[in-house]
Order: sequence, then C-alpha cells, then structure tokens
Amino acid sequence: MNEPKFPGSPASKYPRYTIIVAGGSGTRMGADRPKQFLELAGEPVLLHTLRRFADPALGVRELVVVLPAGQLETWQTLCAQYNVQIPHALVVGGATRWASVRAGLAQLADRESGVVAVHDGVRPLTPRAVIEATYEAAYNHGAAVAAVVPKDSVRNLSQQGSYALNRARLRLVQTPQCFDLALLRRAYQLPELSTFTDDSSVVEDLHPIQLVEGDYRNLKITTAEDLYVAEALLRAGKG
Amino acid sequence: MNEPKFPGSPASKYPRYTIIVAGGSGTRMGADRPKQFLELAGEPVLLHTLRRFADPALGVRELVVVLPAGQLETWQTLCAQYNVQIPHALVVGGATRWASVRAGLAQLADRESGVVAVHDGVRPLTPRAVIEATYEAAYNHGAAVAAVVPKDSVRNLSQQGSYALNRARLRLVQTPQCFDLALLRRAYQLPELSTFTDDSSVVEDLHPIQLVEGDYRNLKITTAEDLYVAEALLRAGKG
Repeated sequence: MNEPKFPGSPASKYPRYTIIVAGGSGTRMGADRPKQFLELAGEPVLLHTLRRFADPALGVRELVVVLPAGQLETWQTLCAQYNVQIPHALVVGGATRWASVRAGLAQLADRESGVVAVHDGVRPLTPRAVIEATYEAAYNHGAAVAAVVPKDSVRNLSQQGSYALNRARLRLVQTPQCFDLALLRRAYQLPELSTFTDDSSVVEDLHPIQLVEGDYRNLKITTAEDLYVAEALLRAGKG
Repeated sequence: MNEPKFPGSPASKYPRYTIIVAGGSGTRMGADRPKQFLELAGEPVLLHTLRRFADPALGVRELVVVLPAGQLETWQTLCAQYNVQIPHALVVGGATRWASVRAGLAQLADRESGVVAVHDGVRPLTPRAVIEATYEAAYNHGAAVAAVVPKDSVRNLSQQGSYALNRARLRLVQTPQCFDLALLRRAYQLPELSTFTDDSSVVEDLHPIQLVEGDYRNLKITTAEDLYVAEALLRAGKG
C-alpha cells in the first residue's frame, strides 16, 4: 500500500503488513450490529482501527481486513457511506479467531519477508507509538506483543479458594501482536489447539514472545460500557 | 449510623461496617490534588465513594474514612462546601495501605461482631449489588472479595520471555473486600509483609478467600484517563 513516507524511518528497513481481525457478532453486547460496526465518535469502530494502521508514518505496505462471510457486504456499504479511501484487502474469516488469522495470512502468501501485525478490529484506540514499538520489537526478536501490567491485584483460583499472584510478573496482553512473517506462517501450519487465545499462544511453542509496553487506553470494545469509555477518551483527545 | 431500613433485608442479620481508605497523593496523575479529591461529575471522587456505601438499602451501621494526616482539613472543607450530611468517622492513616486499614480498624475496636468492608476511596462507581453480595459472602464464608475475569489474555514473565496463563482461572481483584470483623482484627495483629497488596493478601494465611462477581465498571481512578472514563460511565447512567 504505502511506501514508507520517511526514508530514514524504521519502517524502511523491512516490509510491514497488518491483519485486522473482527469476528464479533454483537450478540454479547446486546447490540443490533456486530460491535466492529457500532458507531464511535461518528464512525464505525472498525474504521477507527483501520485508520490507526493506515497512518503514513507507520509505513504499512498492505492492510488485510478479515470479517465473517455475512459481514463483507455491510463493511463495503459502510466504506462507501463513509467514503473510505484506505486501500485494503477484504478476506472471509473462519469459525474461530485462529481460522480467521490463517485466512488473513493466506492473503499475504506471496510476500517474501517482513513483519506482520495481527490486531483486533475492536481495538480502535491503539496509540501509534505502541504499534511502532511492537513492529520494531518483532523485527529485532521475531515475535512481540503489546501488554500492560494489571492495575488490580490478581488471584488464581484453587481448590481451597484462591491465592495471590505476583502482579509485577504478570502482563495483560493486548494487540498488536507482531511477528516475523515466516515465523507466523510456520506457526499457523500447526494444528489448531483449544488453548489458543491469541497469536502469541499460537507462536510460543516455536519462538519466545517479547513483551512491549502497551497502553491502558488501548481498550478492546467488548461491552456497551466500553463504547462510552472509548468515546470519552477520544473526546478528551486522549485516544 | 443507619439502622437497616428494610427489617427483612440481609443487613438486619448482622452489623455492617465500612472502612474507606484513600492514601493517594496525586503525584502519579500529575494533578494538583490527590486523586480522591479530584472532581468527578461535579463532586469529589471520595464523596461519590462515600455515597455508595451510605446507601440506606445497604444498612451500613458505621462508616470510617481514612486519610493521610495532611488531607483531613481538605476533606473537612470539602464536606462543608458540598454540604455532606453523611455521618462518618475520620481517621488519620499510616505510611502504607496496611497501616491505614489498621488505623481504620482501631476506630471499630469496641464493636463486638459483624462484617467490615474495606474499600478503595478512589473506586467511586461500585454498584450496590456488588457491595451487597460481598457483605453477604463474607457473612457466610468469613472473607470475600469482589473480582472479575481479565478481559485480556494474561502472560507470566519468565526467564525465556513469557508464557500464557489460563485466564479462566484468574481474577482481577477489586474492592470491596469484606471480612468477619474478628478475623480481620486477627489478621491485622500479624506483622506487615511486603507481599501485602490488599486485604485479602493480609487475611489469606488465616482463612480462605471467597471470590464474588465484581463489575468492570468498578474502576479504580489511577490515571487521568480513568477520570474521563468514570465521567462517561456516570453520564451514560451506567455507573
């Protein structure tokens, strides 16, 4: 898509790709539409997300959006309605997140090398600095995910009740999750496991995962309240 | 303070007490005031918190507010300014959260039995149902804390990098944390440990901790963004 606009920038060292995955049906939020299509500050959530990764300063070469088969038309209608000028490939996802990412990855089958970011379509507020840092860490270490320290104490359920964990050693994992393209391909050739909750869990048997400082504002829209929260952060100029 | 307004309600079975602890200095938020005094929807954060526990339907008999020595006057001025009519004891806290809770507990030294809730002064949005459920669980089990399942995947740092934990077995701990009064007293007679991050960690060597379903809206105001978020939740009538 974009050639890097800043020739000396990190993005000029290697091709960057982005796969944005949105599989939500909206039923959990009790909304009439899948949450990726709900309106946030005047535009669909997914469009905010797409804009973040289309930022010319990031120099992302190709953007792939993965949606359930039944939602492609809705998205294309929205793109027309909001006059979206961001070039991106549109791919039909699978029954699970794993299958959807694999479908997105197939779209990049001919690309020789580079770093690919996998990102939740319903994380519309990711700061550019977090995206940049995660690409760079994956370029240097092969696999990197954005994560934050839990703000709350964390307990683990046990047979006797529960016990405290050392919060300083824990990280809440966000996206983007960035990987060397060849590494992610290898990981997605292995069979799907029920323990896969994100891409780092798919990759971790093959390669150590580097953690990058995420951002508390990088929230995932999963409940109706999250939309109010995201609106407030955008309005305050903090998103 | 209040006799239970609803004679058949759970609160009529046993006395309920509340200790609200606020020790923040505001430096982390870059604000000019400690975060418990920052304005949220027209009133100080701590006043919102106090109102939640003063709800007559909860039947809390005594409310104790613990503040750093240097903040007592500020709070009393705010109480006059906002015409606060909620009876509560005001107690000087200590150098750590542990010392502050112990100071609050000393204020209840003459009370014979009951259940005491310990709550963060900067959690102003706790739903009544969560407070009620936590008191009841502590009445039935001795010790109970409100907690939620993490929305994000969780990883544990290791020497090789990090590894995924089973999110379904993890809980992010909130407050209120409710305890049988005698049990909490016994726990606070033991020496302070550096591993104490909350009251359940103080109590857990003596008694198993019951986990109660908390609420994602029950946020702790720790950053400037959290204030925007809390405002948005209140404005949406969701707080």
